[in-house]
Amino acid sequence: MALTRIGLAGLAVMGQNLALNIAEKGFPISVYNRTTSKVDETVERAKVEGNLPVYGFHDPASFVNSIQKPRVIIMLVKAGAPVDQTIATLSAHLEKGDCIIDGGNEWYENTERREKEMAELGLLYLGMGVSGGEEGARNGPSLMPGGSYEAYKYIEDILLKVAAQVPDSGPCVTYIGKGGSGNFVKMVHNGIEYGDMQLIAEAYDVLKSVGKLTNDELQHVFSGWNKGELLSFLIEITADIFGVKDDKGDGHLVDKVLDKTGMKGTGKWTVQQAAELSVAAPTIAASLDSRFLSGLKEERVKAAKVFQSGGFSEVLESEPVDKARLIDDVRQALYASKICSYAQGMNLIRAKSTEKGWDLKLGELARIWKGGCIIRAIFLDRIKKAYDRNPELSSLLVDPEFAKEILDRQSAWRRVVCLAINYGISTPGMSASLAYFDTYRRERVPANLVQAQRDYFGAHTYERVDMPGSFHTEWFKIAKQSKI
Amino acid sequence: MALTRIGLAGLAVMGQNLALNIAEKGFPISVYNRTTSKVDETVERAKVEGNLPVYGFHDPASFVNSIQKPRVIIMLVKAGAPVDQTIATLSAHLEKGDCIIDGGNEWYENTERREKEMAELGLLYLGMGVSGGEEGARNGPSLMPGGSYEAYKYIEDILLKVAAQVPDSGPCVTYIGKGGSGNFVKMVHNGIEYGDMQLIAEAYDVLKSVGKLTNDELQHVFSGWNKGELLSFLIEITADIFGVKDDKGDGHLVDKVLDKTGMKGTGKWTVQQAAELSVAAPTIAASLDSRFLSGLKEERVKAAKVFQSGGFSEVLESEPVDKARLIDDVRQALYASKICSYAQGMNLIRAKSTEKGWDLKLGELARIWKGGCIIRAIFLDRIKKAYDRNPELSSLLVDPEFAKEILDRQSAWRRVVCLAINYGISTPGMSASLAYFDTYRRERVPANLVQAQRDYFGAHTYERVDMPGSFHTEWFKIAKQSKI
Repeated sequence: MALTRIGLAGLAVMGQNLALNIAEKGFPISVYNRTTSKVDETVERAKVEGNLPVYGFHDPASFVNSIQKPRVIIMLVKAGAPVDQTIATLSAHLEKGDCIIDGGNEWYENTERREKEMAELGLLYLGMGVSGGEEGARNGPSLMPGGSYEAYKYIEDILLKVAAQVPDSGPCVTYIGKGGSGNFVKMVHNGIEYGDMQLIAEAYDVLKSVGKLTNDELQHVFSGWNKGELLSFLIEITADIFGVKDDKGDGHLVDKVLDKTGMKGTGKWTVQQAAELSVAAPTIAASLDSRFLSGLKEERVKAAKVFQSGGFSEVLESEPVDKARLIDDVRQALYASKICSYAQGMNLIRAKSTEKGWDLKLGELARIWKGGCIIRAIFLDRIKKAYDRNPELSSLLVDPEFAKEILDRQSAWRRVVCLAINYGISTPGMSASLAYFDTYRRERVPANLVQAQRDYFGAHTYERVDMPGSFHTEWFKIAKQSKI
Repeated sequence: MALTRIGLAGLAVMGQNLALNIAEKGFPISVYNRTTSKVDETVERAKVEGNLPVYGFHDPASFVNSIQKPRVIIMLVKAGAPVDQTIATLSAHLEKGDCIIDGGNEWYENTERREKEMAELGLLYLGMGVSGGEEGARNGPSLMPGGSYEAYKYIEDILLKVAAQVPDSGPCVTYIGKGGSGNFVKMVHNGIEYGDMQLIAEAYDVLKSVGKLTNDELQHVFSGWNKGELLSFLIEITADIFGVKDDKGDGHLVDKVLDKTGMKGTGKWTVQQAAELSVAAPTIAASLDSRFLSGLKEERVKAAKVFQSGGFSEVLESEPVDKARLIDDVRQALYASKICSYAQGMNLIRAKSTEKGWDLKLGELARIWKGGCIIRAIFLDRIKKAYDRNPELSSLLVDPEFAKEILDRQSAWRRVVCLAINYGISTPGMSASLAYFDTYRRERVPANLVQAQRDYFGAHTYERVDMPGSFHTEWFKIAKQSKI
């Protein structure tokens, strides 16, 4: 048998789909899984889905030996310990110059540790973010490979064909940068995804709770939005969701889904990294908090009773609203909030890039997110253009086009957030975005008082607006004297 | 010379002041510092401040040997490596059964590591949060000792006298719990302090920017607030600050202080731990983000220009406001927001306590924060009482008294946040608190849509409101069929 071009270990659905995708693009692939039934399942699928060149192996030695040198093996196993176990299994059979690629949602520092360990064995290593879920893996994901550039070059030809293809902007893959940068960028991508989903949920909430839109109307609204500036995968599937009837009862399925959201860790990491890097990311944080609070369903049910019995009525304001205007306002609020969320994510990536010397290209990241991944959207094209205009842009908010878009939408945005507040509907993501905007665009914020307080009780010193230097004042003594 | 009762190493101002405080309460104390001039300085201060029994040593051996057994030594050195160095220096001379106490703002896991290392040497260890700054250390701080209970008992008599004394509720110290619990509780205390300071800054901002209050009026308002439900150290010093004139120019000093806030790490840790423990703490996070954004002064100045030249006017709404009503509304908004912030902090402590098996008493923490520390306030008495009524209270928000207070204030709270939004003033802390309240008290949140999205693109499954079990739907297929 001829040697294959590449190997893939870890054949859960994501792994199977990526292997089939690679084979379909004309690259013979060897596959391996510890539970061997998955190997046979993958080979069987390869036959059914078009006699694709997928070769299965039940033991790691023959799997590794079936691949042409230098060997490249993509792992798609659970992040953490399973990755270390798989590396140990495979590396026992690998030779100098071979390469392992981790395609999971791994913590970037684990990738950096492993890259060093591999280098000691003469092996190359990549941490590659893969976005797009099962469907993306099969038909074209967005790929974020980071680590050894040499290793990236081995398989660039494969990745360019396997990735999602977007007209006018090419395959959704690029060499991200050194070390764990591929994982880090994928992590922030997921944080941004949390933000997008939360903002859409708030738009839904306002339209449903204030505007009293039915699911059919919501489907119509979101379908309409998907033809304009909000055109994106998440808006599209949201419209789809409102169209699905419940096959276990009456009405629409979305109303039967419990209001509890799960999560897997990348959103949490994003928020923790933002704090670590002194980057404000309140919209992404609000989406994480909303998931946490959604999980407290029983507490929320009890709290609702406590406040109702205390005289709180769910709907505080009940003047009729102009539905058409509300829909248009919410669309604008959603869009403006989304700009803030992406500005936060991009600034987080840049802060890390600076810290680590990764030299990441923000516009290029926007480009490879245009297809394949969950946050794919026409909007990303505007982000790419903003960084093309000015690669050193300090924030998306001050790009001339985005600034204009925000200005055009700010009245609607403020109306929606205030309306929600007066109806007792929480829009944590939209209000966090608005507060972020209103802080960032303000020359003078009340931080002078906070710094004065810190100097008062902790002698932390302060700077002045009118002269350079560091100052300390005996506030207490002066205040006491003036009281006498 | 007779042996002293206790030792203290690390004689920066905090250490000096705590040593003098201990000596003043009748406990002879040995003091040591690597830079020996600090030792002499401390001994000199002890003479001047009332011939206090403070004994200075220039080398660690004679310092350790001057203390009665079992020896107890408090360290007040910079967190991190300096603590490890000091421990190494001291433990070389200590004997089994002796004890070291770290009084710094240390990361709780470092304390747990050190406690284990000390135990291997037969030494006891405590991590003790000390709040109240320099003034508190000298005259009565709030003390949060955690770790070895045996070690706590050695010096309980000292701590009970050294801590701040509050009429009707006793000394501001209690044994917090095992391991790093003392440091953890102090960390969250600081996070809550960040929240309080931010909320006060927002109140100031709204009163100044919307209500056009002068500094003299602000001093009057805050002095008035300090006679009611908001009575607290931070409100008191805020009033003081507005009374201080600039000695380098005209007007009030607060207006000359640069709007850039520094920070030292405990706020960041609090936000990161909240994410780690799946606890929403958006008010505390908003205060951290506000500090981050305050630091971007130059970017803010530029952004302000971008938006002004784009047609943005700083004051969006300029209808005259009723000053008296505004002041009263802002007071209520501040109070309601504060309840939410403390609810977040307390729930964060409880989550950690559960994870670590610390069995922390939340009401007791509120009690020891009533004096000595930066967040001391009459408000803490209400928190203590809430936990006295129900130690298992799931959130301060649903305590009957707090619930009533929030209900009474919610109209004012909503008015203030909307007013700020319409004036283009950001109130990130107050709006985060309001969104937190409006999410927590809501039986049904729009998380059903988010979970449906997750099931759509990632097959993450969902629960239903009307039957038990875990479900997955082929949303895409059904939506496609219905489109045909």
